[in-house]
Amino acid sequence: MCIKCGDSNHDGRAGLRERRQLLFTGLGLAAAPLLGGVPLSARAQQSPAAAVGSNLGASSVRAWGMAAAGAALGPLQIPRRAVGPKDVLIDVLYCGVCHTDIHIARGDWGPPSYPLVPGHEFVGRVVAVGDEVRRFKVGDAAGVGCMVNSCGTCDNCKAGIEQFCLNGNTLTYNGPDRVHGGHTLGGYSERIVVTERFVITIPPGADLAATAPLLCAGVTTFSPMQHWKLEAGQRVGVIGLGGLGHMALKLAVARSADVTVFTTSPGKVADAQRMGAREVVLPSDSVAMQRLASKFDLLIATVPSSYAVQPFMNLLKVDGTLVNLGSFDPLQEVRGAGLIRGRRSLAGSLIGGVAETQQVVDYCAQRNIQAEIELIRPDQIAQAFDRVVKKDVRYRFVIDVKAGLSA
Amino acid sequence: MCIKCGDSNHDGRAGLRERRQLLFTGLGLAAAPLLGGVPLSARAQQSPAAAVGSNLGASSVRAWGMAAAGAALGPLQIPRRAVGPKDVLIDVLYCGVCHTDIHIARGDWGPPSYPLVPGHEFVGRVVAVGDEVRRFKVGDAAGVGCMVNSCGTCDNCKAGIEQFCLNGNTLTYNGPDRVHGGHTLGGYSERIVVTERFVITIPPGADLAATAPLLCAGVTTFSPMQHWKLEAGQRVGVIGLGGLGHMALKLAVARSADVTVFTTSPGKVADAQRMGAREVVLPSDSVAMQRLASKFDLLIATVPSSYAVQPFMNLLKVDGTLVNLGSFDPLQEVRGAGLIRGRRSLAGSLIGGVAETQQVVDYCAQRNIQAEIELIRPDQIAQAFDRVVKKDVRYRFVIDVKAGLSA
Repeated sequence: MCIKCGDSNHDGRAGLRERRQLLFTGLGLAAAPLLGGVPLSARAQQSPAAAVGSNLGASSVRAWGMAAAGAALGPLQIPRRAVGPKDVLIDVLYCGVCHTDIHIARGDWGPPSYPLVPGHEFVGRVVAVGDEVRRFKVGDAAGVGCMVNSCGTCDNCKAGIEQFCLNGNTLTYNGPDRVHGGHTLGGYSERIVVTERFVITIPPGADLAATAPLLCAGVTTFSPMQHWKLEAGQRVGVIGLGGLGHMALKLAVARSADVTVFTTSPGKVADAQRMGAREVVLPSDSVAMQRLASKFDLLIATVPSSYAVQPFMNLLKVDGTLVNLGSFDPLQEVRGAGLIRGRRSLAGSLIGGVAETQQVVDYCAQRNIQAEIELIRPDQIAQAFDRVVKKDVRYRFVIDVKAGLSA
Repeated sequence: MCIKCGDSNHDGRAGLRERRQLLFTGLGLAAAPLLGGVPLSARAQQSPAAAVGSNLGASSVRAWGMAAAGAALGPLQIPRRAVGPKDVLIDVLYCGVCHTDIHIARGDWGPPSYPLVPGHEFVGRVVAVGDEVRRFKVGDAAGVGCMVNSCGTCDNCKAGIEQFCLNGNTLTYNGPDRVHGGHTLGGYSERIVVTERFVITIPPGADLAATAPLLCAGVTTFSPMQHWKLEAGQRVGVIGLGGLGHMALKLAVARSADVTVFTTSPGKVADAQRMGAREVVLPSDSVAMQRLASKFDLLIATVPSSYAVQPFMNLLKVDGTLVNLGSFDPLQEVRGAGLIRGRRSLAGSLIGGVAETQQVVDYCAQRNIQAEIELIRPDQIAQAFDRVVKKDVRYRFVIDVKAGLSA
């Protein structure tokens, strides 16, 4: 049982995968009714896969989220736009559960727009493409991360950091859709239409379920290692061993960095060691924290809530940087002296650009780096949210979307 | 009157300087009694200037500070060590009053060591040199900043960042003296003995009084512009217009940066404009703060106490950095979201290394960049402290040390 659900027919990841294959075959691509249509692209028309049940018109699809404020998280029917010339229609297979989904669903960052359909790290199959799409054809594996659009013309977009689009990018869910109106609805859904520029190619042979978390957790931890130029042999600390943290650990180990994990969960120590951490420290261990003072080149903080920064700043060498990835909250204990002594930096980093997202997906495929996941059915999302908050996940929940279409 | 002292004989900077010349001539170099002696260096012996009153033995000199906890700041007699082979004996002429002097004297950072003699930015004349000294001869102008020693062998010392010496540098005052024992006594004093490696050459023709503040305020603001590579045309904000702030402004203008000053003192606006600020903003002006959001490449924060960081972080562009130079206190309002959005950094910087201190002194001499100072007598130090705290200084008090030797 991957989710402690008590269902003897639901016996962990392997069983779910087998069932997913059945569901995919059985349900095909025709679950959503036609609401309208646009001309099928010549290339799509020529694809045998697209010939069976492809739908380029606007449609209504099954999704999972909250219909209104206070509503329980459950199945919904949501619209998807018609497939435009530059669009890719993706049949979503696997969607990761990010802590951000929980923050937004629970209103931690303000009231969301309803209906709310989370999900910003997902992988599926292309079922139709618009006339001008060049990188994808029907049947390709494809992924989407935290953004589905940006202006494409500002300096930041041109520099490949669309996450900082000066005209405002379009987040994959709960963001205003500047092109099509309304607000975006994410990957906790049967299908989605995304402009090609924001669709990531999934390399052949990749484990699709374990690849989904790379689209957010993977690139979010990869990007600061690129930006702050983490090199082999450098000493890096990963603070928090959850969805982001375990990816940070694996990606830093892949760079031959010397990795220490800081976790408040003694039960995760063995896992951290198995994934390649040289040392695992409980921050409550003041002796260890003292011993490690001024030892680290880089700290990657994945804690998703407010935390005391100073005890970690003390661990940085001269010119070292602590990169806050997870907490949007006011940070505690940021002392001026802790920055001045050692010319240390406290920085932040936000996901990564489209090219960098493609880069981490390719990087992981080449090195067989995968997220460690627990597959769940869509009806288990609410339970998964609770478990994430309790730090009870090893290490990312991934929704088997097709397991929800038989309900 | 430069210090509002009501003394009609004390008529501002020019008058003080004339008097200083008299004092220098009149008192010569023989004010301190001999306590001991070491062989005079051959080079020093050959110097006509050194032949008059030079003293290479340990000595007792006049200083200004606090004899014990709770004591008023006043004149003291303190020992100076004998001049060793690598040492330079400096007759102190001008010593700046840094806000750090006040923090330490008032115990803001913990109880200091007594007697406490502050002063870590001063300029004077070489009156004797040890046998192995090569860069200085008697009569040279020489300066000393915040450090008087370091291990010289660690990676940071080798890299020229002695302020981060891994074995602990020796601060100019109130620091343990790892070589000679006891604790260091600073530049609020008649003379000082400093190892040559930490003595800065003052270029011929430099205004000695206006050069003194470069040894701390100058290098402290110059160093982050070097480290964070402030370029011509970049937009930089200087937060706080005091001793550090006005140097930051002048140094940034010298680099042809586009400088905005943030000050809580409306009375300083005209000065900031005169010194080259394109814009001067009161942080209470929420309209201006909103208009300037995401506009700055670099912010140099010289505020010497705790302040709310977030309103300034909002002003940074993507990848911008706020460098905290002045506050050793816990900083307020550091929000994770403010770092994540824009990949912004909150950093610190501590003075500069010896080579960088020499660099800023030379840089300013070549460009005629000077601190704006108010000369005071040693008996006015306590009053100056109060005025600094009240932000009532334009823009650095500098003690005319010789004006205290006639008392």
